[in-house]
Amino acid sequence: MKKSLLSLVGAGPGDPELITLKAINTIKKADVILYDALANESLLEYASPEAIKKFVGKRYGCHALSQQEINHVILEYAFSHGHVVRLKGGDPFVFGRAQEEIDAARNAGIEVEVIPGISSAIAVPASQMIPLTCRGINESFWVTTGTTQAGEISKDIHLAAQSSATVIILMAMSKLEAIMDIFAAHGKNETPVAIIQDGTTDKEKIVIGKVRDIAFKAQYAGLGNPAIIMVGEVVRLHPSQIAKHGSVNTNVFNNLFIEK
Amino acid sequence: MKKSLLSLVGAGPGDPELITLKAINTIKKADVILYDALANESLLEYASPEAIKKFVGKRYGCHALSQQEINHVILEYAFSHGHVVRLKGGDPFVFGRAQEEIDAARNAGIEVEVIPGISSAIAVPASQMIPLTCRGINESFWVTTGTTQAGEISKDIHLAAQSSATVIILMAMSKLEAIMDIFAAHGKNETPVAIIQDGTTDKEKIVIGKVRDIAFKAQYAGLGNPAIIMVGEVVRLHPSQIAKHGSVNTNVFNNLFIEK
Repeated sequence: MKKSLLSLVGAGPGDPELITLKAINTIKKADVILYDALANESLLEYASPEAIKKFVGKRYGCHALSQQEINHVILEYAFSHGHVVRLKGGDPFVFGRAQEEIDAARNAGIEVEVIPGISSAIAVPASQMIPLTCRGINESFWVTTGTTQAGEISKDIHLAAQSSATVIILMAMSKLEAIMDIFAAHGKNETPVAIIQDGTTDKEKIVIGKVRDIAFKAQYAGLGNPAIIMVGEVVRLHPSQIAKHGSVNTNVFNNLFIEK
Repeated sequence: MKKSLLSLVGAGPGDPELITLKAINTIKKADVILYDALANESLLEYASPEAIKKFVGKRYGCHALSQQEINHVILEYAFSHGHVVRLKGGDPFVFGRAQEEIDAARNAGIEVEVIPGISSAIAVPASQMIPLTCRGINESFWVTTGTTQAGEISKDIHLAAQSSATVIILMAMSKLEAIMDIFAAHGKNETPVAIIQDGTTDKEKIVIGKVRDIAFKAQYAGLGNPAIIMVGEVVRLHPSQIAKHGSVNTNVFNNLFIEK
């Protein structure tokens, strides 16, 4: 009987080249791969032809399986087949509900390992050439879903809105207006905001505005999840905003949507 | 004459397998590689034998070259040799001073691209099986150097200390006590703290304590940079802290230093 092992593996932000060597090597060794909608499905080609590949993620807002059902599937396969890879979009520990799967496996006596991945919170701003921090502008960045487990807007947003941190809000397009209202209440009406949809993929789209008008601009452009919202002075460093500084990489203007 | 191009490439947190395919493919194409002390030097083996490889980072707190000198070297090589890869530890846009190099290149008419890497802020907690966030505990993480460009403690630390965010402080061991004093002033004396030195490498070491005693414990254990400081309730999810929950991956106890 093969030893049971659960590997939580980060698949990266979308671009299939933005996966690590360690993740690829782990996928190759897997007996079973349980994957999310967020992971790029071409990554499954690294798996052995004998490996079982099963979709367990969310699709169009519906859960294919509940978290409890996923935990159950992990245990079943770990005991029946050995090495289970749980392939998650981005990084498993960045809002990936990894802890619940780890707890379930450990309680069943199954060994667990975590292979980090590139989070969209980091890669998507980079794909648009927006640094997370910039010397002289700020010295921190804050990544949040913006909402608590109960679905309310996190109180921490009020603290973030008072800070110089670049604030990156994931999976929050439905709360965009309410979140921008909090920034406005803290005197940040003129702070620049970027919304990037389908970052690092061919479908990538960006809208840039300010706290006071970004909700309107995003709606006008038809943006929705998966998207990241990025609030902070560093957004001024987007090539479209500093074109006056000289030559810029015109590749980043692909699929760029900016109102004049 | 070859076209001038600057690629800012993230080398990841230390483990040479934690680099992306895209970074490897970019290193392979480079004419010149300018690398930091933080990047694992074994990654240079991906480069063409003809490529020039030059160290331009900091070593033992001394700058080999100033940022201005680095910018100058980038431009010289881009014009004389074509494709320059600037290989940086972690992610280029996470405190990597990438913007200064991008500005210098753009002002000289050189095209720039950024290949993200896995930041130690994300990979090092994962290597210790500590999630950045956990459903029901919190919904954000805040990454900071803790100090402004002028070397003072960032005012944002006061906001971070009031939030439920997991706070990750990089390159700040010399300010550990002063930063912990701020958390204590906001009633966080009992909040758990982990300090992880040389994360994701064979030399990895961890000390776990609380806001009130971590500075003493870290000093007793002789910890120093490169290290990350992690403050937040999620530190309770470290395997050493939840051993009572059942079986855990004993691999994570390698090089583990915890006082009883």
